[in-house]
Amino acid sequence: MTIFNRRDFLRTSGVSILPALIPFTPALGADTHKNNWSPPGSPIIKFFGDGEMFEPGDYLDELQKAHAAANIVRDRYGSGGVVEALEKKFSEMTGKERSIYMPSGTMANQLAIAVLSGENTKVFVQDTSHVYRDEADAAQSVFKKRLMPLAKNETYFTAQQLQHAIENLNNEEVFRSGIGAVSIENPVRRTDGRVVPIDEIRKISTYCRSNKIGLHLDGARIFMASAWTGTSIKEYASYFDTVYISLYKYLGASAGAILSGPAAVIDKMAHLIKVYGGNMYSNWPNAAMALYRLEGFDTRLQNAVKMSAEIFTALNKLPGVQVKALDGGTNMYSLQLAKEIDGKKMQATLNKEFNIRMPRPNDKNQTQLAVNETLLYQNADYIINAFKKSI
Amino acid sequence: MTIFNRRDFLRTSGVSILPALIPFTPALGADTHKNNWSPPGSPIIKFFGDGEMFEPGDYLDELQKAHAAANIVRDRYGSGGVVEALEKKFSEMTGKERSIYMPSGTMANQLAIAVLSGENTKVFVQDTSHVYRDEADAAQSVFKKRLMPLAKNETYFTAQQLQHAIENLNNEEVFRSGIGAVSIENPVRRTDGRVVPIDEIRKISTYCRSNKIGLHLDGARIFMASAWTGTSIKEYASYFDTVYISLYKYLGASAGAILSGPAAVIDKMAHLIKVYGGNMYSNWPNAAMALYRLEGFDTRLQNAVKMSAEIFTALNKLPGVQVKALDGGTNMYSLQLAKEIDGKKMQATLNKEFNIRMPRPNDKNQTQLAVNETLLYQNADYIINAFKKSI
Amino acid sequence: MTIFNRRDFLRTSGVSILPALIPFTPALGADTHKNNWSPPGSPIIKFFGDGEMFEPGDYLDELQKAHAAANIVRDRYGSGGVVEALEKKFSEMTGKERSIYMPSGTMANQLAIAVLSGENTKVFVQDTSHVYRDEADAAQSVFKKRLMPLAKNETYFTAQQLQHAIENLNNEEVFRSGIGAVSIENPVRRTDGRVVPIDEIRKISTYCRSNKIGLHLDGARIFMASAWTGTSIKEYASYFDTVYISLYKYLGASAGAILSGPAAVIDKMAHLIKVYGGNMYSNWPNAAMALYRLEGFDTRLQNAVKMSAEIFTALNKLPGVQVKALDGGTNMYSLQLAKEIDGKKMQATLNKEFNIRMPRPNDKNQTQLAVNETLLYQNADYIINAFKKSI
Amino acid sequence: MTIFNRRDFLRTSGVSILPALIPFTPALGADTHKNNWSPPGSPIIKFFGDGEMFEPGDYLDELQKAHAAANIVRDRYGSGGVVEALEKKFSEMTGKERSIYMPSGTMANQLAIAVLSGENTKVFVQDTSHVYRDEADAAQSVFKKRLMPLAKNETYFTAQQLQHAIENLNNEEVFRSGIGAVSIENPVRRTDGRVVPIDEIRKISTYCRSNKIGLHLDGARIFMASAWTGTSIKEYASYFDTVYISLYKYLGASAGAILSGPAAVIDKMAHLIKVYGGNMYSNWPNAAMALYRLEGFDTRLQNAVKMSAEIFTALNKLPGVQVKALDGGTNMYSLQLAKEIDGKKMQATLNKEFNIRMPRPNDKNQTQLAVNETLLYQNADYIINAFKKSI
Repeated sequence: MTIFNRRDFLRTSGVSILPALIPFTPALGADTHKNNWSPPGSPIIKFFGDGEMFEPGDYLDELQKAHAAANIVRDRYGSGGVVEALEKKFSEMTGKERSIYMPSGTMANQLAIAVLSGENTKVFVQDTSHVYRDEADAAQSVFKKRLMPLAKNETYFTAQQLQHAIENLNNEEVFRSGIGAVSIENPVRRTDGRVVPIDEIRKISTYCRSNKIGLHLDGARIFMASAWTGTSIKEYASYFDTVYISLYKYLGASAGAILSGPAAVIDKMAHLIKVYGGNMYSNWPNAAMALYRLEGFDTRLQNAVKMSAEIFTALNKLPGVQVKALDGGTNMYSLQLAKEIDGKKMQATLNKEFNIRMPRPNDKNQTQLAVNETLLYQNADYIINAFKKSI
Repeated sequence: MTIFNRRDFLRTSGVSILPALIPFTPALGADTHKNNWSPPGSPIIKFFGDGEMFEPGDYLDELQKAHAAANIVRDRYGSGGVVEALEKKFSEMTGKERSIYMPSGTMANQLAIAVLSGENTKVFVQDTSHVYRDEADAAQSVFKKRLMPLAKNETYFTAQQLQHAIENLNNEEVFRSGIGAVSIENPVRRTDGRVVPIDEIRKISTYCRSNKIGLHLDGARIFMASAWTGTSIKEYASYFDTVYISLYKYLGASAGAILSGPAAVIDKMAHLIKVYGGNMYSNWPNAAMALYRLEGFDTRLQNAVKMSAEIFTALNKLPGVQVKALDGGTNMYSLQLAKEIDGKKMQATLNKEFNIRMPRPNDKNQTQLAVNETLLYQNADYIINAFKKSI
Repeated sequence: MTIFNRRDFLRTSGVSILPALIPFTPALGADTHKNNWSPPGSPIIKFFGDGEMFEPGDYLDELQKAHAAANIVRDRYGSGGVVEALEKKFSEMTGKERSIYMPSGTMANQLAIAVLSGENTKVFVQDTSHVYRDEADAAQSVFKKRLMPLAKNETYFTAQQLQHAIENLNNEEVFRSGIGAVSIENPVRRTDGRVVPIDEIRKISTYCRSNKIGLHLDGARIFMASAWTGTSIKEYASYFDTVYISLYKYLGASAGAILSGPAAVIDKMAHLIKVYGGNMYSNWPNAAMALYRLEGFDTRLQNAVKMSAEIFTALNKLPGVQVKALDGGTNMYSLQLAKEIDGKKMQATLNKEFNIRMPRPNDKNQTQLAVNETLLYQNADYIINAFKKSI
Repeated sequence: MTIFNRRDFLRTSGVSILPALIPFTPALGADTHKNNWSPPGSPIIKFFGDGEMFEPGDYLDELQKAHAAANIVRDRYGSGGVVEALEKKFSEMTGKERSIYMPSGTMANQLAIAVLSGENTKVFVQDTSHVYRDEADAAQSVFKKRLMPLAKNETYFTAQQLQHAIENLNNEEVFRSGIGAVSIENPVRRTDGRVVPIDEIRKISTYCRSNKIGLHLDGARIFMASAWTGTSIKEYASYFDTVYISLYKYLGASAGAILSGPAAVIDKMAHLIKVYGGNMYSNWPNAAMALYRLEGFDTRLQNAVKMSAEIFTALNKLPGVQVKALDGGTNMYSLQLAKEIDGKKMQATLNKEFNIRMPRPNDKNQTQLAVNETLLYQNADYIINAFKKSI
């Protein structure tokens, strides 16, 4: 039962995601791994996505390792056990008073915005944001909020644009239904992972605080922003009232999210999750995975960043290969192949011979390469060599 | 108890509405009035607004005349009596199956849009429309709809723009929450009464019908459009599923609105009006007034249009006076005075000596003159002469 | 367009309301009227309803008198003029900080309850109350509240029952969605105008205040309670946070209501009225009437109470006629006729010969007589004599 | 972060659920298991709950077995893979056109009721039902429905009571906001698992169908009803439009639910799940477990029923021990111990010496024993003997 036209999505997002992958025999493990970290049974290097998304068999192996390392204690309805431990971990990491497990990013974003807004209706968001475009009009149809999109097709709006938009409301409208909140996605998935500059975030935060406007961070992929900009997650979080971080995009869980923020906001959430039907009996399979994978994740990601620099420098020396960082980007890089290179064949060879997956180049022989911790499954030379042999 | 900053509204709408008016001694009655129509006890010519808005004393006199002409029968909770008679009259006038009395235009617009949309959430509107800017986010916060504004700061969107916006949704969003309805305000108050071209309305109607999208007309001032474009109200209404027309802007009632449309939509309204708290015990004071004033109103309005042509032609011959129709406009005209003329003094003299009210010219000696049936309280010569003497 | 089955309502409410009445020639005026008060042009004594509900002609005459007595100044969107004057009057009368005009009692009740409840969902009401049975599920379907009915088919619940119900929730439910508010109708229309004892109101008020639970009075007919119990409206109001009083049931207006309460609650209302579609351009025809009729109304009502005692004492001496006050009742009295008397003929004669209206007796020769200020249109002897001659 | 007072719940539900259990060394496996079924690594016989609820270690082992038996294919956002396979399985089992995975029973119940009800607001439920008491007022505060509780503190309402309540609405209320749906929980958790008689279900179904009222089954524990009454799940489902069945109460999953029904209803659900925030990236850990455990589950449950009969017959022969089936009950039995027996000591011995868990007897030496498939971890003699030695 599907609710959207996946082909449309892929076409518009400019990225070709591979179809369901068949399990492979494991390649050689790299010894760069820290924290007792080891690749899954069938480690595949993936130049797409933000991190490891385990197939079921590997998922279970990984959770068994987690259980062996520290006995997993289950939660009941999100209370206690490994869920509570994960919430504490996120509170420390974000420097927030409280954290709570959420079934989905959509629920995390929507409930955060709803509670921050209170009775006010207007919520300012990026035009390109997940809240505006990918939450199925939940803000309006369930939470009774009016989203006010800023910065059409751009990664971010500036503090000045926000201030202007808010002040201009007095000219555009007679009735005052109140500024509810401001929500910022960072990095932005729909602009290929580009970040909101930290200076703008600071200014927006200052403006919002001096005007008592709640500020929410859709930080689903905030780890990507942090690894590429060097700004710590705690610093990012410090500018916002509430922060949502995904558990499945790169922390290995099959689903789930964490929302962190002040007690006055987060303490309302458990009840709201129940009321909106998101309260599940036991959530430990996601929480335990995320907690386990979180250990050392930032180090691994930084290692991947470094390794990718080495790899891309080498690839750029290959004739007809050009890899470029996006302007203001994080882990997504553009790959342009000269027309002499058969991009589709190259992709197939990397997959078949080297267990390296990348998106299929389009008709202009272009695609994007995403950097994530799966690069660490091999060393840089292995990957560089694989590309050389696949051209 | 006020809910908005009136000064802001006036400033942005570019029109200076006069403060509460003191009663005057009546001027001479004109004999151009048809249908036993006569001016109120204290007839004042008003170059602002869309029609007569009676002061209490005149209001009661007028209703007494209505009662004398045809015994007023009261309604009970909007059922029966003069309310039913008015509803029938509007059904004939608009060519719709059913009509129903509504307490306000906001409720008429919102309920029409909500019922036409059903479970779908997206509703396309003009950026400048009353639904988008002047209904206090009711669409989102009460009726769970997402308004999609088109044609930023313009009077209207074209059929092509609408079609493009709807088709482009597939590129912009992954989830499909459905096209609810399209709502068009005509004429548009926030663009000084300009109209949506009938050709665009026809195309939009064709597009909506072939795509089974409900189409609503916010025709609060549709009589103005009709009088200036020559398109009948029935023709305008024929392109839409539902039509709202105001009872107080020019039909004399102190409040109220009528919504007309197909039985399948309108038959749901009585219950919805009750549920949303708009069901009042008796509404005859508004219904009787509107029904009485409706008689001959289109003829009077056409007479006012003709008389205004005569007046403005004469005024344009005065040195330093320039009256111009707005491009695509209806009853609002721009007035530019040369700097030699003391606009504020002129306004004061017209008021004091001739019982003629007009908005106060701004610092650039500009203002707008609105044409409505109050012009008929005198003949053209009287008004032309008054301006001459007031310069 | 009707939304309910009136016959069902009448059958279950045990009262036969007369069909639309034909105008009559006026009977003789009584000289008991105070405050320049005089009957309408066609004064009819009505032993049903809570007060005068003018036919259009009389309504206009009455408003003309009001206008002659004190020039009526109109409001704009409920702001200023006679609406503001009326709001001030109600604030004084109820001893509350603020008052605001509402289009309907349903909106007054629902908005009061919604604001008092805030984020909490449970609202305790009488099973027989208007809020529970006669507001078309607005609480649930628009305002997202859960009404908790108490005292099945009774006039009131006790403080102890309320306390028990609230405390018992902890046994009945696991999740805590919070006590929103308590609403009490007094007197209760569906139990023939019976009152909630003042002692219970005091205890409920004490309980609610010590538990920080908002308390609302649906005092649509609170003047009836006050006239029969001797408790002042101000005292009644003092036990509640918010009070709604009808403008049309006995104050002569064609519709409308006033909600009084603390500034923190009432100051939110103007915006909410707009959002829910109840904000009308001009409301002076109702406000002016209520303000005019309010003058001396309590005195007139007390005179009517006294006169009714005299009349009913006399009627009870007639063979086969028994008039009894209801237990805990206000202005409704039971009338039992012996089978020798032809009740229907009596009713017809009173109407035809004496301009006295009463509900048609049922098959058991029973009906109810309501006392209101229309009794004052004649003196007691006239009425007693009329009954004598009609038996 | 907890949202309810668990102690309150346990006190009122009359059952003492054991606190978090420490892992034990496995007892001897029984050879009565069919379908390659085997107990978890640490099999504990539990005389509470409706089935196995695995601790994390056992959970992972069990899923590894499932993966070994039939390669688990993951879903994406509930689409494809093992989720789709599970949905198909439930459609066959219930005889319904479509089935869909839901994050929680609350969401399954609420969305089913909301869609079945359409624009109508009144939904009839048992006073004791989960929908009425355990879904945190979601029906009112999120889905805008008015729950109408029937059969105060009883397991079920009869068709006649339902019909009377619906018909009586015409006497109790004037406005018609429409009958939305009827929802029946079966068996009822708050009445200790008692069932609604199949004859009443048939009559209610006939009544609802002839009146076009949607009928929903909260069959969270319908397998329990089926095993004890002999009525098949397909037959139960045939009387309802929609059926919700839990995946975690006895099918081993850590969370999740399935809703089955006609395509016209279920096809709307994927979008609604998204809008309400319940759409999760991957749900295979729950779906794979439920699918695996479903195989042979009804046979195992019937074996457990038979074995429990043997065990309880033997226990009843022990001096001072009385085990009784509840009137109209399913898997819960009352246990009364004579005062000579130290119930708490007995409970401790069973736990410590025999790996058998049961609720702690209360002060009257009473408790309830629940029958489920964990009994099959040993044979009857082992269990009977354990009780004998523990008294």
